[in-house]
Amino acid sequence: MSLPGNPTRSSEGFCYNVENDNLVTGLQTDAVKVSSSAFRSYYDAIVIGAGFTGLVAARDLSAAGKRVLLLEARDRIGGRTWTADVGDHKYEMGGTWIHWLQPHVWAEITRYGLATGLKVSTGMSGEGEVSYAREGAAGFVKERPELSDQRLLPLMAQFLDVDGCGGRTLFPEPWLPLKSVDVWRRWDISLQERVEQINISKQDRDFLLPWLCINTCAAASESSFLNLVRLYALSGYDYNLFMEICGKFKLKNGTTGLASAIYSEFKGQSIFSCPVKAVKSTTSGVEITTRAGDVFRAEQVVCTIPLHCLSDIAFSPPLPECFIKARHANIGGKFHILSSTPIAPWFGVNDEHHSVCAAFTESPASGGGTHLVSFAVGDKLIAQQDVRHDPMTYLRAVQRDVVPDSVHIRPVQLTWHDWARDEFSRGTWASYGPRQLSKGLGELMMQTYHGHRVVMASADWADGWVGYIDGALEMGKKAAVTVNSRLDSLTPQSHI
Amino acid sequence: MSLPGNPTRSSEGFCYNVENDNLVTGLQTDAVKVSSSAFRSYYDAIVIGAGFTGLVAARDLSAAGKRVLLLEARDRIGGRTWTADVGDHKYEMGGTWIHWLQPHVWAEITRYGLATGLKVSTGMSGEGEVSYAREGAAGFVKERPELSDQRLLPLMAQFLDVDGCGGRTLFPEPWLPLKSVDVWRRWDISLQERVEQINISKQDRDFLLPWLCINTCAAASESSFLNLVRLYALSGYDYNLFMEICGKFKLKNGTTGLASAIYSEFKGQSIFSCPVKAVKSTTSGVEITTRAGDVFRAEQVVCTIPLHCLSDIAFSPPLPECFIKARHANIGGKFHILSSTPIAPWFGVNDEHHSVCAAFTESPASGGGTHLVSFAVGDKLIAQQDVRHDPMTYLRAVQRDVVPDSVHIRPVQLTWHDWARDEFSRGTWASYGPRQLSKGLGELMMQTYHGHRVVMASADWADGWVGYIDGALEMGKKAAVTVNSRLDSLTPQSHI
Repeated sequence: MSLPGNPTRSSEGFCYNVENDNLVTGLQTDAVKVSSSAFRSYYDAIVIGAGFTGLVAARDLSAAGKRVLLLEARDRIGGRTWTADVGDHKYEMGGTWIHWLQPHVWAEITRYGLATGLKVSTGMSGEGEVSYAREGAAGFVKERPELSDQRLLPLMAQFLDVDGCGGRTLFPEPWLPLKSVDVWRRWDISLQERVEQINISKQDRDFLLPWLCINTCAAASESSFLNLVRLYALSGYDYNLFMEICGKFKLKNGTTGLASAIYSEFKGQSIFSCPVKAVKSTTSGVEITTRAGDVFRAEQVVCTIPLHCLSDIAFSPPLPECFIKARHANIGGKFHILSSTPIAPWFGVNDEHHSVCAAFTESPASGGGTHLVSFAVGDKLIAQQDVRHDPMTYLRAVQRDVVPDSVHIRPVQLTWHDWARDEFSRGTWASYGPRQLSKGLGELMMQTYHGHRVVMASADWADGWVGYIDGALEMGKKAAVTVNSRLDSLTPQSHI
Repeated sequence: MSLPGNPTRSSEGFCYNVENDNLVTGLQTDAVKVSSSAFRSYYDAIVIGAGFTGLVAARDLSAAGKRVLLLEARDRIGGRTWTADVGDHKYEMGGTWIHWLQPHVWAEITRYGLATGLKVSTGMSGEGEVSYAREGAAGFVKERPELSDQRLLPLMAQFLDVDGCGGRTLFPEPWLPLKSVDVWRRWDISLQERVEQINISKQDRDFLLPWLCINTCAAASESSFLNLVRLYALSGYDYNLFMEICGKFKLKNGTTGLASAIYSEFKGQSIFSCPVKAVKSTTSGVEITTRAGDVFRAEQVVCTIPLHCLSDIAFSPPLPECFIKARHANIGGKFHILSSTPIAPWFGVNDEHHSVCAAFTESPASGGGTHLVSFAVGDKLIAQQDVRHDPMTYLRAVQRDVVPDSVHIRPVQLTWHDWARDEFSRGTWASYGPRQLSKGLGELMMQTYHGHRVVMASADWADGWVGYIDGALEMGKKAAVTVNSRLDSLTPQSHI
């Protein structure tokens, strides 16, 4: 195992400079950490994956006095959440927004004193223009946000009101989504199926659908209605609050600042750039084999590998089928655009018929420009085209699909992480398709233990904020509690 | 120091049986814990108070390897929050309701697997009747909740809308309330002053005020407008959500179940029934003298003594004046009524002109009866009358002030804790009067460190949910982080 050549630069992330037609691969970040140099022959617990789930599990287990090894395939912490430094700007390459109504992430933010000085994404401030495209790109409609609200909120209420109670009966305790399966089972349909059930005009449907699809970056027919209702329930059944939670506030020093704070409290050993090849449980322990051929042994394992990557690992005994077969719907992309022009706060949405489903302003850039973020639909764009090979085509798609004439973007730089092609993620934040909560996802949520030695933990099947940083932390904390009590019951008091 | 005679019975709490005219003093509870039997001559940290603030501070410090002593004046954990077992029912004697939109308490609930099976207080379920009394008790008006909502929500919106933005500009980051002092300073007024600013009819005012006063159990003229706006901001500016957070969900095994779970992870020493008399900081450490004359020494102290009790302790050097002079407004009372009659979900409110400001159904009781909870106004009732001496007068006041004819209560039992007369609380949950955030409370919030050795931590001056369990946990966690890093900087690595 070798240390990374440059501890402040990851091998990950792309940045394209328009003027020079130059693509940089591998961006500066505080997320790159140094591997430990000495290891134990046997650990109390091995945590696979140093995303937020793994970081918090590793920290909590080591704080409880357990001997922990953290194995990470990438050269950095954070998983699908990391902050790249390009020029003077901190780019959130994956998971970004946090809120005080997300309990697990806010508890961590408070713990590390990071609540001071949150940044607001200007397009989500509730003060900017809102624009949306008509189907077929026949033109753009721009509205002031309060007008948009006046139209959107009643439509959204109608859309969600499957029960005469605004959807409230589906998840009366949103942190226990499986508890009310008998109530929600018949509503495990797609966004498309649901929108066809309600009696609204075609114009209203075209207006509503874009807002619904943002959370999956996929077609309405491939996006789950219940996935949205769950998040809506967690947001107190308030759509504006839901949008604020999902996209308004960022950490001043980035998500990597929070991840680094958690990692700094971890008192075990770590190895980076060390993908796992096999996980073998026996009666005497778990044996982890890395791609490099190293073998590590432990009493317990916390596996935080993303859902779409689990089939790359040889589990013995094999994982339940749901872990291999279940798929979430989000294989879209997130692209940061630096425009040299000043742009007033703006939020633009589009629908599944376009390659780009949303874009909005994030903050002014130095020199009078503007930082914007855009989201691309998975099967419309990401799956068909590696943006590295033709960044200008992507930038033109943004312009064509989502930017009205009145918003003057002059792109000078494009910054992104290709999560769909990344072998350690194979997709972005988990957002599911129809009939997953009843079947694949529901099974995952009930089978988070693989035998007596492996705990499966990921935001991908969180009980709460599925696919979000909060869900990752939730699952990591729960995994640590489970593993800790298992270890304590095995060898009472031996660790104290 | 002697161990308590009966570890399952506290000396606290009252229960009056109507039929037998019998008052029991001291109720069964899981909150009573056994003191340690051996002590160190010197601790890294002493935590004064085993309420939620102290429990979480003590747990986190001991988990970080620090040697901690927890000193508690009462014979039990929980402070102003504990669960008494009377018959087959768990009575929440103080702080009660929790919600997943309160980040700190939900993070703890998740940590201990207590999210399963929350109980709903039926009167707050949103499905029951709502009644309110007209001024002067000229009669009661009953409404279905949706009708009440249709009237209340627009009035509440008008009441809060000081800025044309629904009050949103006052606390743009509600976890940093002091940050926007220049915006909110002119609104540091009473609920009464605010209600007089808006142009609504006398009937509407009489309808609105009761809802506003519940959170202080005090007159509108003695209750802070900003205190309410802060909590409203923390609830995502959604009044129904605010009410749900404040009063709908309870823990199945009570708040004492959560407190016990936190305490079970504490790895230090504890002494109960051990009030502190003096806290003396010197250059070499802090010296704590108990009323019993014992002296304990530590490097650092976390003081979680409630605001209204701080003047009972001799601090050397003296505490800043704000800790002695600041007062919150809530010296009301909470009384559990067991009715032998079945009562459909109901919520009744009243205004400051009555002794009892609110009552509502909590759950069906065994044998066909109903558990209800009622709240009494401090200066109207609690200050004038010790309910122990005449419980029937209190029960008649409930009937007279808040119960409409259609709700048939036949009280058989009254259960309560007299927080206002309790020398270790001198009031209930902290809710402030006007001009406190600008002055007394604001000063407290800025001076949470007393010198270099004492951290002052209490829900009474929490940055977030002031007066709530969530605020207690927030302050305890922050105190632990501060003290831990102080200790680490004093003697680097010596504790690892």
